[in-house]
Amino acid sequence: MRTAFIIMDGLGDLPSPKSPLAMAKKDNMDFLAEEGMLGMFYALGRGVVPGSDTSHLIIFGYGLDCYPGRGPIEALGAGVVLKEGDVAFRTNFATVDSRGAIVDRRAGRIATEEAKKLEKLLQGIEVDGYEFIFKSTVEHRGVLVIRGDGLSSDVGDTDPHRIGIAALECMPKNEGEGAKKTAHLVNYFIEEAAKRLQGKKANYILVRGAGEHKKVESFSKKFNTKAVMAAGGAMYKGVARYVGMEAPDIEGTTGDANSNYGNKADYAIKSKAELAFIHIKATDSYGHDGNCIGKRKIIERVDTEVVGRIREEFDTIIITGDHATPCSLKRHSGHGAPLLAYGSSVGKEPSDYFSEIEGERGALGHIEGLELNHMLMDWMGKSRKVGS
Amino acid sequence: MRTAFIIMDGLGDLPSPKSPLAMAKKDNMDFLAEEGMLGMFYALGRGVVPGSDTSHLIIFGYGLDCYPGRGPIEALGAGVVLKEGDVAFRTNFATVDSRGAIVDRRAGRIATEEAKKLEKLLQGIEVDGYEFIFKSTVEHRGVLVIRGDGLSSDVGDTDPHRIGIAALECMPKNEGEGAKKTAHLVNYFIEEAAKRLQGKKANYILVRGAGEHKKVESFSKKFNTKAVMAAGGAMYKGVARYVGMEAPDIEGTTGDANSNYGNKADYAIKSKAELAFIHIKATDSYGHDGNCIGKRKIIERVDTEVVGRIREEFDTIIITGDHATPCSLKRHSGHGAPLLAYGSSVGKEPSDYFSEIEGERGALGHIEGLELNHMLMDWMGKSRKVGS
Repeated sequence: MRTAFIIMDGLGDLPSPKSPLAMAKKDNMDFLAEEGMLGMFYALGRGVVPGSDTSHLIIFGYGLDCYPGRGPIEALGAGVVLKEGDVAFRTNFATVDSRGAIVDRRAGRIATEEAKKLEKLLQGIEVDGYEFIFKSTVEHRGVLVIRGDGLSSDVGDTDPHRIGIAALECMPKNEGEGAKKTAHLVNYFIEEAAKRLQGKKANYILVRGAGEHKKVESFSKKFNTKAVMAAGGAMYKGVARYVGMEAPDIEGTTGDANSNYGNKADYAIKSKAELAFIHIKATDSYGHDGNCIGKRKIIERVDTEVVGRIREEFDTIIITGDHATPCSLKRHSGHGAPLLAYGSSVGKEPSDYFSEIEGERGALGHIEGLELNHMLMDWMGKSRKVGS
Repeated sequence: MRTAFIIMDGLGDLPSPKSPLAMAKKDNMDFLAEEGMLGMFYALGRGVVPGSDTSHLIIFGYGLDCYPGRGPIEALGAGVVLKEGDVAFRTNFATVDSRGAIVDRRAGRIATEEAKKLEKLLQGIEVDGYEFIFKSTVEHRGVLVIRGDGLSSDVGDTDPHRIGIAALECMPKNEGEGAKKTAHLVNYFIEEAAKRLQGKKANYILVRGAGEHKKVESFSKKFNTKAVMAAGGAMYKGVARYVGMEAPDIEGTTGDANSNYGNKADYAIKSKAELAFIHIKATDSYGHDGNCIGKRKIIERVDTEVVGRIREEFDTIIITGDHATPCSLKRHSGHGAPLLAYGSSVGKEPSDYFSEIEGERGALGHIEGLELNHMLMDWMGKSRKVGS
């Protein structure tokens, strides 16, 4: 008994006149719809607009009380092995002028290879026994982790999200020693980094999204189930690694529309895990762009390159999104994602078509938050009875 | 205005290709479906797998915070009148060899009459002012109640659920005096019982499922409604008695497939109660056995022997299950139970057929936990307005 769980990011959409999912030619998904059941999934409840990190945490069966903030998720996605109490930030390489005013928040969207060279200059920074781990990821983006005793993530961003002014000083958000200490360390790192980057185009580091790494119970322990995650986007690997799932860097997967979906499917098949999550980012990206045709084409690729490939290998197949990113709105929305569940322990309804409307009227109904995880675990025969 | 509420235990099922409920010839239920409304009921929420005790508590309108554990429910079902603070256990007559190793956890499934004789040997055991109430029920099964001040149910089982080894000593699960005292008393009883049973085949008592009896507000007080329960299975009578309902032993009712359903219907009719629950166990038993045809036949019997009989006597009729026990899974599951509600204050939808699919797509929607009790009380005109 193996289960595949396909998450098409931002899948949910509005009719205009038909949604990308409704328009897509997708014989494999429609076959599963005919043999399975449909519903709608709202990761954070009806009408609530989820981020992708929080919604994935919910899909994995962890409540928002487990959410550590974006910094640790990005750091884990970048391959940093975090320790409990580490405070992590997202960073940008930026360009500042001689007076310290920000000229470009992304240092001219510096190339990834170029940023990797600069990363080397920022290694080995330490002070008072505190360690700074800096890693660049894609283009100007990167992560900063501060390691040591008594830190707090309750500190502000330095990125003012504007140009023409100086970066903000990192400020504690409470009176405690931990926040003061952490803000001091961030400012120390930024100053030291600026010295080392002097003369470069990318001559400054902006930080934001402080979060403290917490140790949560691993997925395998919490649910007595071995699960893996096939994703290209670092953030999605980060959420999976946060809950202790294997989420390797898979060749050719990028988190972009050019990602190699077949390699994700192959990894899921070969992993032998009882539960394999497969994440597709580009549906969301095209939603943000307002590109209905692009979104539809990604769904069609997923149908053949993922669903067609795994159909024979998994007994139970779930397909949904983490949230809606309607092309007409070009943003995440609270409309929810259509949900398809197929498998011998799921049930069956007379429906021959996977779309938002079929989902909204589907027999599974409107599923909110952790309910989907409960249902998944029940379908997999992994639930524990409450009472006797 | 009288309401009948029929609970077919483990009613919910999966299509294979049709569910037992969908296959059953059930003119009375289908008539009520045509004149009423359909939905799905999930006692503990979507995907959560309920026990029968917890789900009945929820149906009666009591949250899980009122759940005392299985011991008190079984003791009440066995006819013991419990006092607040009593600690109750489920017991097995077992057979141990001369070295104390368990040879048979059920003493060869000793006959009920034989066990009743042994029960007599175990009366009048007392120590330090604590009283032991032992009652055998069906075959090797029974209950033990310890009565006295300062007891705690936070003690372990002695039943190792294995043979070839000695029974466990009852151990306190916390450092408190109550748990230590209770464990000590359990061990005392077991030793004393072993002396009295010496030489018999059933020469040992195993205990499990400790629970402390709490006094909850009675159903009649909480809902200003007189309710009764017609059930054969002791556990179901136990839950009803726990909330203060009348739940008598009705002639010919057994909790098995051979139970006299007509006598349950007659009791419900004659009780004159405003709300009569009627419980049918065998749907669940056949689900556990994977016997679809057996399950279907029970539903057909309920249709004629219960629904047909009460239709003219009650204004409002609710039919559902406490949970699903799909024949294909042979276990309780989180799929929920189809729900039928009929009555002048319920409403009506164009549906002419009672089944899981019709329920899932029904106009009542997906009802979770205490919502069903709220709707029931509203249909009965017993709800109090919130606000003014």
